Amino acid sequence: MSDVQYDKLIVQEVAPRDGLQIEKTWVDTPDKVALIDALSTAGFSRIEAGSFVSPKAIPALRDGEAVFHQIHRNPEVIYVALVPNRRGAERALESRADELNLVMSASQTHNLANMRMTRDQSLAAFAKIVELTRGTAVTRNGTVATTFGCPFEGKIDEDLVTSIVDRYLELGMQGITLADTTGMANPRQVARIVKRVLGRIPASALTLHFHNTRGLGLVNVMAAYEVGARRFDASLGGLGGCPFAPGASGNICTEDLVNMCDEVGIPHGIDLDKLITLSRTLPALLGHEMSGQVAKAGRNKDLHPVPDGIVCM
Amino acid sequence: MSDVQYDKLIVQEVAPRDGLQIEKTWVDTPDKVALIDALSTAGFSRIEAGSFVSPKAIPALRDGEAVFHQIHRNPEVIYVALVPNRRGAERALESRADELNLVMSASQTHNLANMRMTRDQSLAAFAKIVELTRGTAVTRNGTVATTFGCPFEGKIDEDLVTSIVDRYLELGMQGITLADTTGMANPRQVARIVKRVLGRIPASALTLHFHNTRGLGLVNVMAAYEVGARRFDASLGGLGGCPFAPGASGNICTEDLVNMCDEVGIPHGIDLDKLITLSRTLPALLGHEMSGQVAKAGRNKDLHPVPDGIVCM
Repeated sequence: MSDVQYDKLIVQEVAPRDGLQIEKTWVDTPDKVALIDALSTAGFSRIEAGSFVSPKAIPALRDGEAVFHQIHRNPEVIYVALVPNRRGAERALESRADELNLVMSASQTHNLANMRMTRDQSLAAFAKIVELTRGTAVTRNGTVATTFGCPFEGKIDEDLVTSIVDRYLELGMQGITLADTTGMANPRQVARIVKRVLGRIPASALTLHFHNTRGLGLVNVMAAYEVGARRFDASLGGLGGCPFAPGASGNICTEDLVNMCDEVGIPHGIDLDKLITLSRTLPALLGHEMSGQVAKAGRNKDLHPVPDGIVCM
Repeated sequence: MSDVQYDKLIVQEVAPRDGLQIEKTWVDTPDKVALIDALSTAGFSRIEAGSFVSPKAIPALRDGEAVFHQIHRNPEVIYVALVPNRRGAERALESRADELNLVMSASQTHNLANMRMTRDQSLAAFAKIVELTRGTAVTRNGTVATTFGCPFEGKIDEDLVTSIVDRYLELGMQGITLADTTGMANPRQVARIVKRVLGRIPASALTLHFHNTRGLGLVNVMAAYEVGARRFDASLGGLGGCPFAPGASGNICTEDLVNMCDEVGIPHGIDLDKLITLSRTLPALLGHEMSGQVAKAGRNKDLHPVPDGIVCM
């Protein structure tokens, strides 16, 4: 890091989707709406507000239509819906999502397990979804899940990732997300892949989606930012998890990311105090502690009175 | 990060000292000895095995003499003792510590609260301790606590930090540790300060001690490594905490750090599988979960069978 003026970092908040999808506790529709409405006033330009997946597959988000209809739309916010197939796209369009996030895995095994489709079948479905959105204002983002590693296959060929990015661009995706679905990325790999993909698309069209499963989420953000990435997914409180690692972290934590930006001097436009206050409501809503740190520790500027006795060595 | 050959990163394991000092649960001497003995066979070249502080101040480590006498010394390992004053140094020398780690805070307020001494009084005490060790094989390390921020005073003047480093060197310290005592460092600041201090001492004499209180521990490691730092403190399981933030993380987690090194390709000489196995014994010993991630999530190479049903989007 050198002493320079930093470009703005864009955070897409994903707690209402990636955060909630794995929760065992049912969150009532009004609570989901209240969470999204609160996030809508915190300075985010993008919120992934839900997914339109089979309710059998992800029951926690089965009320996607109701949520999208009941939220108060902030005209400055793009409300994104995750969509795995054509049926999901139709539901998202009926629900007036601003953007469809189409997801498939670089790993064939992972895509088959998740989507019950081969990658080619996913891409064929996406071509039809793109047709559905032609002539509308709805934008399309293509996510490459398991870009940095697959929990079943292990390492993922980087040429495969860039070939999927190319297919997405041919299909008419306006944005690309590279997703570290189960937290296997490392900063050296991230810098290498991000540089390759930024040879194909501008930074304004690329989102990085990191998980903190092995503690490297924010390390990977800095590695990606340093080679030019500017858009990142993050989840309030670090809400979310990993189905293979009970107790391990999921998505990187939004307030930890925003706090890092504040300390380094990277502009972001988000109200960190509001985020911390909101994050501190999540344990009561969901019945467990969050993995994020800043909501527990406070900000650097929150000084403490001098106590009696030794504090720490 | 570029595709280069990386220099070795040296990890000093501090769980037996910084990890245990804040624990509410008393750990019996044989359990402490067993922990240190296990760590002694995991590839570490340096272990901070205890502190010689007033037993009233830190009762959890009141058995320092017994621990140092009962451990099986691996001749490849330097066993370090933290020492705040002359009485502590005498106890450490009687206990055959290989190195004394002398600690004072850059923050006057923090040093007064912790040590009941001004910085000048600490430095005067250290001068006498240095005399005690002259003509022995015992080495001396000077730690600058609160280098990157103080929970009472806030920001710390960087010139003050380098002036303390200079005083330490004049006193005859052979090593310097810059400590982020309550997790307030950020990567930009770390790079700046490490560069300044590496203008005074070689990388082989500088240790960085980071806490993960606000989620930036490993980010700061990478920032320091990239500008030339090569020695880092870390604590098994992330054992340790912060007296001001119940539930927040303490020291950076050794196995998370070592796993990052493995993934990036930084050599370290430590047996990660052994660390993970050992870390997984800590919750039963101490009665709570650890903050480290890799012991929960496993390594990237620990692949999973393909489950029935959707895994994650």
